[in-house]
Amino acid sequence: MTNETEFIASLRALATHPAARDLEDDCTILEIGDETLVLTHDTMVEGTHFLPTQDPADVAWKLVATNLSDLAAKGAEPIGTLLSYTLSDDNERFLEGLQDALETYSLPLLGGDTVSGKGQATHGLTAIGRATHTPVPSRSEARAGDRIYVTGTLGRAMLAFEHLDGPLANTEAYRRPIPLLAEGQALAPHVTAMMDISDGLLLDCWRMAKASSLAFRLDRAAIPVADQNRFAECIRWGDDYQLLFTLPVGTACPVQATQIGHVAEGTASLHLDDEKLNPEDRLGYRHR
Amino acid sequence: MTNETEFIASLRALATHPAARDLEDDCTILEIGDETLVLTHDTMVEGTHFLPTQDPADVAWKLVATNLSDLAAKGAEPIGTLLSYTLSDDNERFLEGLQDALETYSLPLLGGDTVSGKGQATHGLTAIGRATHTPVPSRSEARAGDRIYVTGTLGRAMLAFEHLDGPLANTEAYRRPIPLLAEGQALAPHVTAMMDISDGLLLDCWRMAKASSLAFRLDRAAIPVADQNRFAECIRWGDDYQLLFTLPVGTACPVQATQIGHVAEGTASLHLDDEKLNPEDRLGYRHR
Repeated sequence: MTNETEFIASLRALATHPAARDLEDDCTILEIGDETLVLTHDTMVEGTHFLPTQDPADVAWKLVATNLSDLAAKGAEPIGTLLSYTLSDDNERFLEGLQDALETYSLPLLGGDTVSGKGQATHGLTAIGRATHTPVPSRSEARAGDRIYVTGTLGRAMLAFEHLDGPLANTEAYRRPIPLLAEGQALAPHVTAMMDISDGLLLDCWRMAKASSLAFRLDRAAIPVADQNRFAECIRWGDDYQLLFTLPVGTACPVQATQIGHVAEGTASLHLDDEKLNPEDRLGYRHR
Repeated sequence: MTNETEFIASLRALATHPAARDLEDDCTILEIGDETLVLTHDTMVEGTHFLPTQDPADVAWKLVATNLSDLAAKGAEPIGTLLSYTLSDDNERFLEGLQDALETYSLPLLGGDTVSGKGQATHGLTAIGRATHTPVPSRSEARAGDRIYVTGTLGRAMLAFEHLDGPLANTEAYRRPIPLLAEGQALAPHVTAMMDISDGLLLDCWRMAKASSLAFRLDRAAIPVADQNRFAECIRWGDDYQLLFTLPVGTACPVQATQIGHVAEGTASLHLDDEKLNPEDRLGYRHR
């Protein structure tokens, strides 16, 4: 067995505790006393999740930001973080980016592990948060009739990635994603389903449709993209870390976001206007 | 800056939250509502923490066991775990060892991340536990007059490591360490300081002496080792995962353990009979 999908399927068979949510979610939800904790762990591998030529300060920022983005999608408030760090040739820049991110999000560094490795660097982060609203939003509770929303503009990280050699200001969207913590907390009491978009709008919409066992119908003209001439790429490229969520009809959206479609009865499926998309086709990035 | 010690010193400057315990401890202690959580993350790198030729099932077991050993030293009861796994050529054996360990310790797998990498594999585990006694034991609260104890026999992992090519039964102590969870929980209400021995008795004794700012005086003849002819190595080799702790004079030890010395007034120092050991000399494994 070498296949990632098969490996995760086998892990799922081991992860029978309800808090694991069948590993279908980006976070673990754990009831502790009278609190509900939200935990997540994301790992970034050199050559896979970041380029060896990238500034380690940006890698550190992104490691923190992507984990906090998972907490944001649960409406959680961060409590702290554990870092697993592989020593490299430029630890100082990593520390600078780490400090930047920790200070920006008032996130305490609580512990972790530092290791030496000979090959590519692998950095991991465990983020611990406290739910601000229960039940904690999941991917699976969208209901027929709900409206589908997305924050921000899709494809900005893609355009920024293509300009990594240019002026720094044009590349922020790729290098320094922003976890939408305030938005997630404002949304949590109202949404029926929510997740962050890490692997592209279409793929993540499909995952939500599948988890909710309903048809997701997207309105092509409504989807906010950074470049209309490259619409197909903008809705497939990942790394934007916007929030995707569903609201019941008539519920006012409490944050700035765009309505991009609706949820309909039917088996799990994804539609772009009248076209039914095939999940076997490339919908986005399957890198996790 | 490339030095691990300097890097950790810089991290420490960032880790100002009390729960981080100045990164001097193997665990993070977090008060959540009316519960006290204990969290730890250990990472194992191929070529550094395990051999590429080792059975992945043993690697998985050890990853779980070493993290649980950190919880044991806090008297914590495990709640669950997040796995960060690098896909390899033999994921099936890893899964088998993982399942073994999870079942043995009734440990729920709650989440994590699976990544692809091209170089050496890096596996991490975050273990989450609940304190069974507060205050949670630390390394720093030993008091002058306390007796120093250790569980089990030191050097067994070393001997097992040297026989990795031989019959499996002789290598268990290295391949399949046992986290002393019941012992840790029984000890937590009584000890003044406690930690697990991962890097060798002397080095870990020195760390406890330093954290407690006292003189640790070991009685050479009392220290239980697996091979008297190789005494010096047995007390320097790591991987035994026994518990090292201090008890006030007159406190009966509630688990099977050996009294190996006492704590005395004076500056932080480590003595073996009349010899004062120099922390600059090789006391054990500094691989964390």
